[in-house]
Amino acid sequence: MSMLNARSILVTGSNRGIGLELVKQLVEKSNRPEWIFATCRDPEGPGAQALKNLAAKHEGVVINPLDTCKPNSIKAAAARVTECLKGAGLNLLINNAGIVRPASMEDETPESMSEVYRTNVIGHMVVTQAFLPLLRKASRESPQKGMSCSKAAIINVSSEAGSITNLLGWEVGHSINYRCSKAALNMLTRCQSLGFAEDEILCVALHPGWLQTDMGNFEGILAPVKVDEGVKEILNTLACLSEKNNGTFVNIDGETLPW
Amino acid sequence: MSMLNARSILVTGSNRGIGLELVKQLVEKSNRPEWIFATCRDPEGPGAQALKNLAAKHEGVVINPLDTCKPNSIKAAAARVTECLKGAGLNLLINNAGIVRPASMEDETPESMSEVYRTNVIGHMVVTQAFLPLLRKASRESPQKGMSCSKAAIINVSSEAGSITNLLGWEVGHSINYRCSKAALNMLTRCQSLGFAEDEILCVALHPGWLQTDMGNFEGILAPVKVDEGVKEILNTLACLSEKNNGTFVNIDGETLPW
Repeated sequence: MSMLNARSILVTGSNRGIGLELVKQLVEKSNRPEWIFATCRDPEGPGAQALKNLAAKHEGVVINPLDTCKPNSIKAAAARVTECLKGAGLNLLINNAGIVRPASMEDETPESMSEVYRTNVIGHMVVTQAFLPLLRKASRESPQKGMSCSKAAIINVSSEAGSITNLLGWEVGHSINYRCSKAALNMLTRCQSLGFAEDEILCVALHPGWLQTDMGNFEGILAPVKVDEGVKEILNTLACLSEKNNGTFVNIDGETLPW
Repeated sequence: MSMLNARSILVTGSNRGIGLELVKQLVEKSNRPEWIFATCRDPEGPGAQALKNLAAKHEGVVINPLDTCKPNSIKAAAARVTECLKGAGLNLLINNAGIVRPASMEDETPESMSEVYRTNVIGHMVVTQAFLPLLRKASRESPQKGMSCSKAAIINVSSEAGSITNLLGWEVGHSINYRCSKAALNMLTRCQSLGFAEDEILCVALHPGWLQTDMGNFEGILAPVKVDEGVKEILNTLACLSEKNNGTFVNIDGETLPW
């Protein structure tokens, strides 16, 4: 099986759910990344205590405030990461931050639609623009051929709920705000894959499975997969991604999902 | 060949381009709709003169101000249309209003992304919510079986540029703002098709072809199809749509496009 050998990884929305578990499992890997940049909106707030505890125990876990809706906070985070890396590039950017506003078809509001799109799509786009120089640097300076998450990659955490073909979970909740944002994020991923192909930056939209996070358990339903088990699979899948997955939508078994 | 026999049609963004040509060709049909509601942002502005001239010459063409970004203007338009129809329903809603902001991948801005999403996705959603009671009424009171544009339908004018699979025109322009909005609009259409299936309201995302409108001719390129020819094909295709097209993405030849 392939190994994930990234020297530096950045995870947005890392104070809880999938983001927090990603950081937790990454620090415990035998060949752990030297740098794990864990960002969240408010590292000083009560919702970031678990992440802070984790960073206190493990060297190389750097917490940075980053609000994906605030371009200035993104720029500031990119500057700090650049400084930490002392001239090296960033291997793997995991755009994980995401929100949903439960709503039925007929009660969906312009405000929820805008807010969710800002976080789930525009935020990822701006984060990627800000870290692109570091990703390009990592790609240029890597001795590896082809594409991989160990070399230079953007993983956009999408959802099969945003597959226009499959519409995962329709019977459980409509949440047009979320579904439209994830379909748009899939489009963004595909565009990034073409735009950054020359740079040999791998761009993949990932369906992380339906995990038991605050977001996964909704409308009184318990999601089918435990967070730690799901994230273990996610990391195995990331290790196996290559240029043949560039610009595609994959699930945690590495299978391609329809748009 | 099937005939389009809608008694009432509403077209948003009807002061120019595809919207204006739709109104023009609809009034000239032998079995023309009794009511053609032509909406645009500013009917009193200089950009609406051609539409006003058309309405002056033809009875039953009713111009209403409707800004898809202003929910109050949408509600006001729905109230006026309801009054005109005197208890009857609305057969066909063509969500045609749309914008694009030319930009490259790396220069794309949060502001353009938000603005285009507001018009191209949220606007269509809110317009549909406002006119849903009239569409349901038309469906309920129609003697026709199955689904059609003559009975009750929502046509969302999308674009093959928003097909994540095909990415029409990538070599000409990136405009992530537009592509993401159209992918999201396709998702909205598919959700509407499921949400309104019981009401027998047909919901279709339409790629109108690449027509020689202000929007179609960009980056110095002349679009391949004349507006009047394209719109003729659009109207032929609308006449042929049935429940088998519900929740799909079709081009002006009636062929299904991939998401």
